Parts: sequence; C-alpha cells; structure tokens
Amino acid sequence: MKVYGDSRSGNCLKVKYVADYLAIAYEWHEIDIMQQESRTEAFLTLNPEGQVPVVDLGEGRVLSQSNAIIQFLAQGSSLLPADKFELACVNQWLFWEQYSHEPYIAVCRFVMEYQGESAAGRELWRVEKGESALDSMEQRLGSQTWLATQGMSVADVSLMAYTRVAHEGGFDLSNRPSIKRWIADCERELNIGVYDRYDGG
Amino acid sequence: MKVYGDSRSGNCLKVKYVADYLAIAYEWHEIDIMQQESRTEAFLTLNPEGQVPVVDLGEGRVLSQSNAIIQFLAQGSSLLPADKFELACVNQWLFWEQYSHEPYIAVCRFVMEYQGESAAGRELWRVEKGESALDSMEQRLGSQTWLATQGMSVADVSLMAYTRVAHEGGFDLSNRPSIKRWIADCERELNIGVYDRYDGG
Repeated sequence: MKVYGDSRSGNCLKVKYVADYLAIAYEWHEIDIMQQESRTEAFLTLNPEGQVPVVDLGEGRVLSQSNAIIQFLAQGSSLLPADKFELACVNQWLFWEQYSHEPYIAVCRFVMEYQGESAAGRELWRVEKGESALDSMEQRLGSQTWLATQGMSVADVSLMAYTRVAHEGGFDLSNRPSIKRWIADCERELNIGVYDRYDGG
Repeated sequence: MKVYGDSRSGNCLKVKYVADYLAIAYEWHEIDIMQQESRTEAFLTLNPEGQVPVVDLGEGRVLSQSNAIIQFLAQGSSLLPADKFELACVNQWLFWEQYSHEPYIAVCRFVMEYQGESAAGRELWRVEKGESALDSMEQRLGSQTWLATQGMSVADVSLMAYTRVAHEGGFDLSNRPSIKRWIADCERELNIGVYDRYDGG
C-alpha cells in the first residue's frame, strides 16, 4: 500500500496510526500541501479533489477520505466491531468528527500553524463550534472509557488525531480531564509518543 | 423503529428514502427544528447534539448522523456492497457528502428556505464551495451511472437528498446534465416524486 499524506495533517496521521497499530505494511509518500504538491497533475489523477490522505492499494484501487480509509484498513480487526449496531455507533462518531469537529478544531490549527495567524485571527464562529465539540467529547468521555464502543475503535483514533493537537489551534484542554485521560489512553494503546503540551502548559 | 426528523431536511429524508426502498417499517415523529423541537429535554436525551435525524431501534439502541443511520439500515441490501473495497468507495462518498457538499449546498438552502434570505444573502465562500462540489459530481457522473459503485448505493441516496433541492439554495443545475440525469435515475429507482424545478425553470 502506498500512502500519500502530509505528516503534519491529523487526517493523514489517522492512516499512519491505524496501519502501524495493525502492522499493515505501507510506503509513505510525503505530500507537502503548502508547496501545492496536492495540486500537481499526477496527484489530481489519484484524487481529483486534491485532498490528502490518499491510499493506492494497487490494481487501480485508490481511496480518499481519511475516515473511509481507516474504516477499510480496520475491517476484521479489533478497531472495528463485528456487531452491526456497534459498527453503526463507530460510524456515527466518524461522521460527527468530519462534520462537527474537524472543520473547527483542525481548521483553527491550520490557520495558526500553517498560515501563521494568532489565536485572535481565528474565526469566532469556528472557535465556538470547536469549544462545543470539545465539551461534547468531555461529557461523553466522563462516563465512557472509549468514545463509541467498549474497546478502542477507529472512532477514537479518528477523533484523537486532531484533539491531541487542539492546543495548536488555540483550544485549551487543561479543564477537560476526561479528554486528557482518553488521549493518554489512546497514545499508550497506539504506542505513539506522549504529546505533553495539550494541557496548555 | 422510530425516526425523529424534520421532513424538510435532506438529512432526515435520506432515512425515509432508504427505509421506504428497503421496506423497513418505521414510525415518523416530526421534529420541527425551527420550533426548537430538537432542543427539548426529551430530544436532547435521545441526542445530546440536538441534531436530526435520530432513530430509536428499541432496547436503548439510538443512532444519530444521517449517513451512519442509512449505512446501518442498508446492511446486507443492494444499497451497500459486500465487497470490502466497494464498501470503502461508498463510504468515501458518504464522508465527502458531509464534509464537501452538505455544509455548502444544504446550508445555503437553509439560509434561503428556513431563514428567508435571498441568494445574495448567502456567504460567498459557501457558494463557491457548493459550486465546486456540484462540478465534482457533474464530472464523476459524466462517466459513471452511479457515484460509487456499479449499482445505486447509499452514497447516491445521500448525495441526492440535497442535490435534488440545490436550486432552493440558489444553485443552478441547468448546465449540469449528468447530475440531472442521475437525479432522475435516483427518483425513478426510489419511486419518489419528480422534483421538476431543479433545472432552474
């Protein structure tokens, strides 16, 4: 499998986290989106939308959309439940991530980290929606170890990718202990380095 | 199954279209979002996010997120392929719908139909993203009968729901013949009434 991704992008790191966890072999092809590498003719042939990540599975089988990719990779593994209702609960959180979390948490981070704006340069409506998304997660994770099911699922990997770096978009997790506990659980389970700045310190 | 939805909402109609097509019995509970009926204590107990649609499957099993719901309902049917890669292609379009289509096509329609704004009252960046989404669909449907797979799938039902009423958000389909052909195919297959205004006429 070839993975085309920008290694600063949470959407792309989701694919890396799942592939590493499930020991799926891949070649990582770095695509620097700020250098317009997702706008070349060759890249647009892979994905006409010009978005990363993209995976090329060979024999003309190409997939885009981070959550569709990790759901595909996780088929038959512990990260995706076999029970149909539990699977639907995982999917519910995956769609929530793309609609109610990523456009706020990830976009505010993009504005600050990639475009060099200050926290004050963020659009206020995105900040408010981002805070609301984090509040929803804090409430959920106050009563559940993992977001969607009894064990860690792709829903946790998906939500963790940008929540873990939310502070880089000006969001403060210091008063959200359940999210911080869950990020640490995800990091330990996935064996990825501890991100020690997400308490705002 | 109980379906809680606003019958003017494309997200809610997706659930109705799929349930009707697959002859799944349900009770429809109308939730008027403009009357704040999705903000009552009873509704927030069903879905803390305060969003429609929600389905109650009984025994405490409640689902939200329109695309997660229709994917659940379509399990084992012709609307969801059994092949893992084809399933991933369907999911790719479902995620694309929530990230790159609904926030523009549906939100512009909401602003005009629910809030009474004129087309000029739409946010320009949403209009541009919406036009771009329709361009992507027109290109895709110029070479494929259905969006994701050889037959109609939940990806078609999902995308059709708001594309069919895109003109109500100020978008013109008259120069997009492939989308118009595909909407007619979906309407015929799903046995829903022809929406005769989507050519801007």
